Amino acid sequence: MNANKEVLPVIDCDVHNQFRSRNDLIPYLDEPWRSHAERFGIPGGGLPYASPIGNKRKDANPPSGLPVGSDPHYMLEHLVKQFNMDYALLCSDSIIGLSGFADSDHVAAVCRAYNDYLIAEWLSVSPQFKGYMCIGTQDPAEAAREIDRIGPHSDIVAVCVSGGSNMPYGHRYFHPIYEACERNGLPLVIHPGSEGSGIFNAPTAVGYMSNYLQWHTCLPQTFMAHLVSFVCEGVFEKYPGFKVVFCEGGVTWLPPLLWRLDKNFKALRASTPWLKRMPSEYVRDHCFLTTQPIEEPDDFKHLESMFNMFDAENMLLFSSDYPHWDFDDPTKILQRLPIEKKRKIFSENARQLFNLK
Amino acid sequence: MNANKEVLPVIDCDVHNQFRSRNDLIPYLDEPWRSHAERFGIPGGGLPYASPIGNKRKDANPPSGLPVGSDPHYMLEHLVKQFNMDYALLCSDSIIGLSGFADSDHVAAVCRAYNDYLIAEWLSVSPQFKGYMCIGTQDPAEAAREIDRIGPHSDIVAVCVSGGSNMPYGHRYFHPIYEACERNGLPLVIHPGSEGSGIFNAPTAVGYMSNYLQWHTCLPQTFMAHLVSFVCEGVFEKYPGFKVVFCEGGVTWLPPLLWRLDKNFKALRASTPWLKRMPSEYVRDHCFLTTQPIEEPDDFKHLESMFNMFDAENMLLFSSDYPHWDFDDPTKILQRLPIEKKRKIFSENARQLFNLK
Repeated sequence: MNANKEVLPVIDCDVHNQFRSRNDLIPYLDEPWRSHAERFGIPGGGLPYASPIGNKRKDANPPSGLPVGSDPHYMLEHLVKQFNMDYALLCSDSIIGLSGFADSDHVAAVCRAYNDYLIAEWLSVSPQFKGYMCIGTQDPAEAAREIDRIGPHSDIVAVCVSGGSNMPYGHRYFHPIYEACERNGLPLVIHPGSEGSGIFNAPTAVGYMSNYLQWHTCLPQTFMAHLVSFVCEGVFEKYPGFKVVFCEGGVTWLPPLLWRLDKNFKALRASTPWLKRMPSEYVRDHCFLTTQPIEEPDDFKHLESMFNMFDAENMLLFSSDYPHWDFDDPTKILQRLPIEKKRKIFSENARQLFNLK
Repeated sequence: MNANKEVLPVIDCDVHNQFRSRNDLIPYLDEPWRSHAERFGIPGGGLPYASPIGNKRKDANPPSGLPVGSDPHYMLEHLVKQFNMDYALLCSDSIIGLSGFADSDHVAAVCRAYNDYLIAEWLSVSPQFKGYMCIGTQDPAEAAREIDRIGPHSDIVAVCVSGGSNMPYGHRYFHPIYEACERNGLPLVIHPGSEGSGIFNAPTAVGYMSNYLQWHTCLPQTFMAHLVSFVCEGVFEKYPGFKVVFCEGGVTWLPPLLWRLDKNFKALRASTPWLKRMPSEYVRDHCFLTTQPIEEPDDFKHLESMFNMFDAENMLLFSSDYPHWDFDDPTKILQRLPIEKKRKIFSENARQLFNLK
């Protein structure tokens, strides 16, 4: 048997549990938000672009007739069992975009409801589901309280926020969130969500791209800025146990960014006297990136070369993005990597980071 | 003699002619702007960050006592002759930032004055100086008129604008500028300038970085978004003779961006029915990048690998950024590249693009 063909265990770090409808959250809302939701619905954030091909896999419709991604039992069959997964880590991109909504109290209430719903209606279905709790970033003190409330639950393995923001995440304003993450042993997962909506900054450095294709191509810009900000503001010196996962923004932008950052740091470090190591060293020790959507140069060797320009084998986490249109099949991507690297990327890095068995 | 040590001709595509003071422009201003400038000065744009080490080389002070970069005769000695340059292409980063100023008529007047000043006080000093004319992007029709007025001058070799913008440059709003560029055989040079000031979008996709080090590291974000926008909006189909130079934003971010763009295009091309080729093919044929500040991975082979992931030898243009702090010395950077590639990057690509002898 070819060792490279060995069936590897898989931990999928970006699986999207969907609502049947947003009203699923109503039973979990506290008053006055429950009555409000019964009358007016629950706010949804919303990207200012629509994909020309929709955003769901057509073959992921559950036979139950429920909306794609909303049937936990079918997800166990269609994803977890089919691909021999140890765990599917559930990430609701339907909630994190609410950090672009201006009313922070309303959003905090919806996040609390979502986190209780996640535990009751998904994580209790199977020990193979683990979940990313959601917070709003508008009120970091409130977010920290929610992390302390829900974070200790054994099936919660991370705290999830949108890449969209009106301030880079290293800013001191957000530090109570990272202190709470560290205190609860939870990484922060940053995932795309509603970039450019509401109070979020426009989704690129020059404003709004014209359509989904352009926006999606430029999406890593939020991640790049957050990463530079985390390092330069000294977040990893202040919270040495804190880890960040950049989820669904690609990976090969990292080496060029770190070269630029390290070079600038050498000349301009007077701005950041609290840094004791090179910026790229903090990134190597504190940051992770999920694989999907993996870049696909015509020549696979180019991707392999890029992987050798940073500590890819220890920093990458496999993700499929199920049930979205650009799903990556774990039996198809990165198959030409050596088996030891694949083992780490497909499960071992995530097992260690999220403290899974 | 080692062929790689051969002294190569150099065309420097990013040299900053500085004002003695902004009042240098007063004699070139039309009324009512001249009287206004005499009473209130000339607006200056302005980055919302200051470099901790200033932004000029300390050794570039002219013996004349004039401010750094403001003495054309000293620049000829200290830069052009010292480094065996055929041409120094002059780019005023003190003017392009005015595209962030809301009053487009005022800015158009200052640009007209600058372009006349550039020809009279710099380009007339030496045939080795060639210049990038400046326009404001707030009023594309007026910018096109200015390109038609000044563009035909034989010492004007490009049209320069800031990377800062509140809209990606592929947007139809800007097309009259590209039509005028094509009509006059002039490339568009996009250079950093006053990102985040005035009516410009914040300088990253998540708002304002905290300091100059962080801003400078994230600066390529404006270029990435403009490039994606140019391609996807079909600018290169509409204006097949139009070329763009991305000046002073680094280069190695390009291959990862193009992989992402090509991959997305394959799935989402319904958004861009006017594109007849892969996005990366348009970029290869229409886009150029200047070298400074070149990324410096610890291992030079990584840079060389990156250069092999796009058509670097035909798309790169040497630049020094004289007299700025992060000046690149043409006798020191990229020395390990093969001589044929160096010859193209250090002069031949620019000679052809800017139609120089």
